[in-house]
Amino acid sequence: MNQQMEIICIGNELLIGKTLNTNASWLAKRSTTFGIMVKRITVVGDDVDEIASIVREALKRKPKFIITTGGLGPTFDDKTLQGTAKALNRKLEVNEKALKMVREKYETYYREGKMERVELTPPRIKMATLPERAEPLLNPVGTAPGVIIDVGGTSFIALPGVPAEMEAIFEEYVAPLLKKEAGELTFFETSIHADGIMESALAPLIDKTMHDNPYVYVKSHPKCEERKPHIEIHFSTTAKNSEIARDRLGRAIVQLSEFVQENGGKIRFKRKK
Amino acid sequence: MNQQMEIICIGNELLIGKTLNTNASWLAKRSTTFGIMVKRITVVGDDVDEIASIVREALKRKPKFIITTGGLGPTFDDKTLQGTAKALNRKLEVNEKALKMVREKYETYYREGKMERVELTPPRIKMATLPERAEPLLNPVGTAPGVIIDVGGTSFIALPGVPAEMEAIFEEYVAPLLKKEAGELTFFETSIHADGIMESALAPLIDKTMHDNPYVYVKSHPKCEERKPHIEIHFSTTAKNSEIARDRLGRAIVQLSEFVQENGGKIRFKRKK
Repeated sequence: MNQQMEIICIGNELLIGKTLNTNASWLAKRSTTFGIMVKRITVVGDDVDEIASIVREALKRKPKFIITTGGLGPTFDDKTLQGTAKALNRKLEVNEKALKMVREKYETYYREGKMERVELTPPRIKMATLPERAEPLLNPVGTAPGVIIDVGGTSFIALPGVPAEMEAIFEEYVAPLLKKEAGELTFFETSIHADGIMESALAPLIDKTMHDNPYVYVKSHPKCEERKPHIEIHFSTTAKNSEIARDRLGRAIVQLSEFVQENGGKIRFKRKK
Repeated sequence: MNQQMEIICIGNELLIGKTLNTNASWLAKRSTTFGIMVKRITVVGDDVDEIASIVREALKRKPKFIITTGGLGPTFDDKTLQGTAKALNRKLEVNEKALKMVREKYETYYREGKMERVELTPPRIKMATLPERAEPLLNPVGTAPGVIIDVGGTSFIALPGVPAEMEAIFEEYVAPLLKKEAGELTFFETSIHADGIMESALAPLIDKTMHDNPYVYVKSHPKCEERKPHIEIHFSTTAKNSEIARDRLGRAIVQLSEFVQENGGKIRFKRKK
């Protein structure tokens, strides 16, 4: 069975539509590739109580992984760890390992001539102030460390909101964890395109195809039904290896293509990885 | 006080990272402009029980508006209305007004020579099958109507997932509702850019600015802290008119700009609407 994940994205800029949530789709895509099933994505503002209740709710559903993005920086409205500490009923404390990471970052910036030597002011120490029994994850790109906390069966992982930092910590520390948990399972997908058939005519054909191919998920995405019917049909499966996946997807694609042609539609192939 | 909204986006394609959630940010931005406060955005898959529990949870928090996107089409995995009916404990029934909309759409497609005359097959009737006591909203662009349901103090609104359809129904039916609820309140925002100062040095300055300007929300967005500090500083406020908003934002910008310059940073202005 697929291991499950929830993603929580924190930041008012997402709730006012200032920022497009590319972090969520990047994390979802990358995690899905490893055979992990993302069950829910939640976006919430920079508010300790809101963050705490969303983390609490997610933990109750017992996913194997919870990944948060955003709210780890030095400013007053970076509240992810405060909210998490509240949800977990743990104190916040200066984490010595994290403090060392932050200190060495500023030393490096100074040595490389990028800035003057600075003191570890409270906003800088804040980035090393984690819930009790948390492990910091070195940020190879920026200053604020990521955080991982083992919460009885769920790995809670907090990543920064800056995409380059989030992605770097993910690849370094999170990807290996996901791979290990997912075991041999991998996600495979491909799309074909149908012309000359409406989604409402396609619907029962997809139904039948999914019924006959129980491990394949088929979904239609109409691209402009009214003017000229063009529908992307997306096939996906999670399998132990690419041979099994290719077999499964191939069989479903052939079947549905025949159905579509019998119903007056045309199929175009356009293979994606 | 701002009226609150939750957005629920439904579709497996969002959870596997196939599709970037532009609907959520479009809705969030547009609603925020009217002075509505988006409190939470949730993304969930094409699963009746998942949809039902998310709708139930959102209703418990009593926002003034819940807007869903996706899952209104003719295929078996368009499950938004099934999930909603389950959450509300209402039966699904063929809604005569919605059925008329769907029938007239196909008549129009036929008359305009876009397709042959088709029958109202079960997948097509499905688009007109709504929870009891729901009102359909005419889709000016596609076939599936939107839906609005009054749930004791919360307006529950279901919109299609195809962006052009979602936006068209929103502008026609939802925008006027939001404007009416928000009253005279409108959201105003602007950004300035700071060079030569790190986010960790900026943090206490933003703190002080927000303390002195209680109606203004200030948030820093580091754009590449390590190599060369460049920070976007975003100011926003919700006010009755643009004069009040301009006053408030102006005062906060001037104060923070002075702080930044006193601390060795430089400010660049780049006015946004």
